[in-house]
Amino acid sequence: MTRFMDVHHGMEGLTADGLKQAHQADLAIEKDEGVHFEKAWADPASGTVYCLSEGPSADAVQRVHERAGHPADEIHPVPLTV
Amino acid sequence: MTRFMDVHHGMEGLTADGLKQAHQADLAIEKDEGVHFEKAWADPASGTVYCLSEGPSADAVQRVHERAGHPADEIHPVPLTV
Repeated sequence: MTRFMDVHHGMEGLTADGLKQAHQADLAIEKDEGVHFEKAWADPASGTVYCLSEGPSADAVQRVHERAGHPADEIHPVPLTV
Repeated sequence: MTRFMDVHHGMEGLTADGLKQAHQADLAIEKDEGVHFEKAWADPASGTVYCLSEGPSADAVQRVHERAGHPADEIHPVPLTV
């Protein structure tokens, strides 16, 4: 399992409820891909969302996000944490 | 206090020790600006580092990073979390 940080752009105006609903949509199907979305942070002003997850591959992370209706623009493995 | 996610590029080849040292350099001076760096995640392959912090402003976050020798390329307030 690898930890990933993925980034979404173009989410200007996202609300707290919108972020919660998007996260719930990921959680509802993440097990199909062996992924777990741990946390997400959003900047509604610039439309940027960061999601932290663990999973077998970046493709698996993306498949969950795609099926949930919000594909990521970037997905980076982040093997180093402090 | 606002939560911020900042991003560094060009950190290809960063090691676990390098990340730890950079984080310690921030922690050593962060109080001067009323900032706290909570967590950081790094992708040495693409040279990307994400730092999560709390502080009074993006400028305060950047001043700590600059004095520690690693200015951020982007700093986003992330008022929404899930």
